[in-house]
Amino acid sequence: MNMKINVGIVGYGNLGKAVEQSVLSNSNLNLIAIFSRRMIKSKFNTKIEPYESFKNYSGKIDIMYLCGGSKSDLEVQTPEILELFDCINTFDTHKKIQTEFNKVDELAKISKHRLIMSCGWDPGIFSVIRGMFLAIGKTMPNTFWGKGISMGHSDAIRRVSNVIDGVQFTIPNKEAVKLAKTGNLPEGMPKHFRECFVLTDKNNETEVEYEIKNIPNYFKGEPTKVNFVESLELLKLKNKMFHKGEIISNFKTIHGTKNKMQFSVSMDSNPNFTAYIMLAYTNAVINLKKKNKTGAFTCLDIPISYLFVGKEKDNLLNIIC
Amino acid sequence: MNMKINVGIVGYGNLGKAVEQSVLSNSNLNLIAIFSRRMIKSKFNTKIEPYESFKNYSGKIDIMYLCGGSKSDLEVQTPEILELFDCINTFDTHKKIQTEFNKVDELAKISKHRLIMSCGWDPGIFSVIRGMFLAIGKTMPNTFWGKGISMGHSDAIRRVSNVIDGVQFTIPNKEAVKLAKTGNLPEGMPKHFRECFVLTDKNNETEVEYEIKNIPNYFKGEPTKVNFVESLELLKLKNKMFHKGEIISNFKTIHGTKNKMQFSVSMDSNPNFTAYIMLAYTNAVINLKKKNKTGAFTCLDIPISYLFVGKEKDNLLNIIC
Repeated sequence: MNMKINVGIVGYGNLGKAVEQSVLSNSNLNLIAIFSRRMIKSKFNTKIEPYESFKNYSGKIDIMYLCGGSKSDLEVQTPEILELFDCINTFDTHKKIQTEFNKVDELAKISKHRLIMSCGWDPGIFSVIRGMFLAIGKTMPNTFWGKGISMGHSDAIRRVSNVIDGVQFTIPNKEAVKLAKTGNLPEGMPKHFRECFVLTDKNNETEVEYEIKNIPNYFKGEPTKVNFVESLELLKLKNKMFHKGEIISNFKTIHGTKNKMQFSVSMDSNPNFTAYIMLAYTNAVINLKKKNKTGAFTCLDIPISYLFVGKEKDNLLNIIC
Repeated sequence: MNMKINVGIVGYGNLGKAVEQSVLSNSNLNLIAIFSRRMIKSKFNTKIEPYESFKNYSGKIDIMYLCGGSKSDLEVQTPEILELFDCINTFDTHKKIQTEFNKVDELAKISKHRLIMSCGWDPGIFSVIRGMFLAIGKTMPNTFWGKGISMGHSDAIRRVSNVIDGVQFTIPNKEAVKLAKTGNLPEGMPKHFRECFVLTDKNNETEVEYEIKNIPNYFKGEPTKVNFVESLELLKLKNKMFHKGEIISNFKTIHGTKNKMQFSVSMDSNPNFTAYIMLAYTNAVINLKKKNKTGAFTCLDIPISYLFVGKEKDNLLNIIC
């Protein structure tokens, strides 16, 4: 158990940086290199390599943290890296998760590696809780996000013509949260407010606002406010890293008695919290490898005991039961 | 997937009755018989058999819900029943869990059966959450119970000489909960108040109160109030089935940012809620059997995907991710 695990990081944005510092503070992990398309220097003097160099590290790195974005990086990088290394990623395009899972599961089995996929807070530990609540209460729980930036909604804004840049804050509807807690949330009641901050050419604000508010699956039918801001203010807003989330289940048993289950997280920094989740699931990769299991796994496939190794694992029933 | 699972219940107290009604309302389960030392009639006309008759049901029952008490029933009954059936129990004597686990794990492997052990809310799903919070935040979360009856503390009261009967309500210290939520709970601050209701011979109240307040591991050092009541009032209090619990984790990452994770349950009826947890883990037994796995398992060993079967399992990533 005293052998250090050699790890690498692919992608050096906010998440990559958060993972770097988390790894450096973990005495079981040995950070070999960070692979990035942009050759930024590391504050901690970690070796930075161009992305393609990952191929030269076969046998020198055990586990790769894939810290690219879901929008374009992860679908391309995960298959490439998985050919040579065990991996953990945070793939979070909800609609594509099943298709992506099937693809990488097959690849991981061929290359005899393991991937923990969609390993963040949502999807990730929130998926675990929704599954637990659904299995126990036989009703789908309500999830509320925010206040915090939604990457998916921000991307949707940026795809609108004449939008130079933008960001979207998801804000839970307090009234809806309250009703969910008493089990009385009416079907169709808006669960969130969406506040958008947009940088655009001055002359088409009315059109841009109309277009944003009518993007299907993202804004249409949801209370949305569009604010037009200057580039400096937008930059400041885009750096807000705080976020929150809450899952609420309210159900009656067949005996007629009421039950409530609630789960919530709040964080100053989304990437720092996500990095800690990725690090926690590092032990899952180690345990899967010990059992000679290969393939793709989501947090739903990982028993909590797999998040521990060594003495802590052996003693787990005494520690946390 | 359309084959019904044949199940039985051992023990016909509050939990056994709650499980009975839950099973009857579940279209995937077929309740064959209830095994009880006391021959009480079932409101639902379920077949009630004397305890020893379980031996005649080998091959006719797939899964047994063991609904006896942890204090004396489960340690004896689990090994006996496990020789012939897959089982789920709610063994909750925290200090004995590891020893009990080792014993029944060996027996289950010999008889080629599966046992989900300690499958309630605490231990059970609370163990899962404590494990998740510990793995992510690297600090032990705080658990608060109540207001609700503690079986262990009530048993401890009843062992005091001259006590005829008694019950103990655990009440969380609101101030401690508040401090835990901000990450400032001081070491050693009492997390709970303990309110005892005791029926005793009239003349020795002072001694009884002194003895109760000094029971080590249960009351000594914890704020405890002892009330002496009449038998009718005690009976009413002993029938209070509501309970609550909360787990709070508050941690800073190495980057200096703060994070909070919280999990809470509240229920009108402890046995009804516990029955729903046991039913949720029925699918885990089915999935373990499909994979030819035998032995004892706690909720910590069961991935959430194992709580689903059939179409729901195949479609899980789309449903809850």
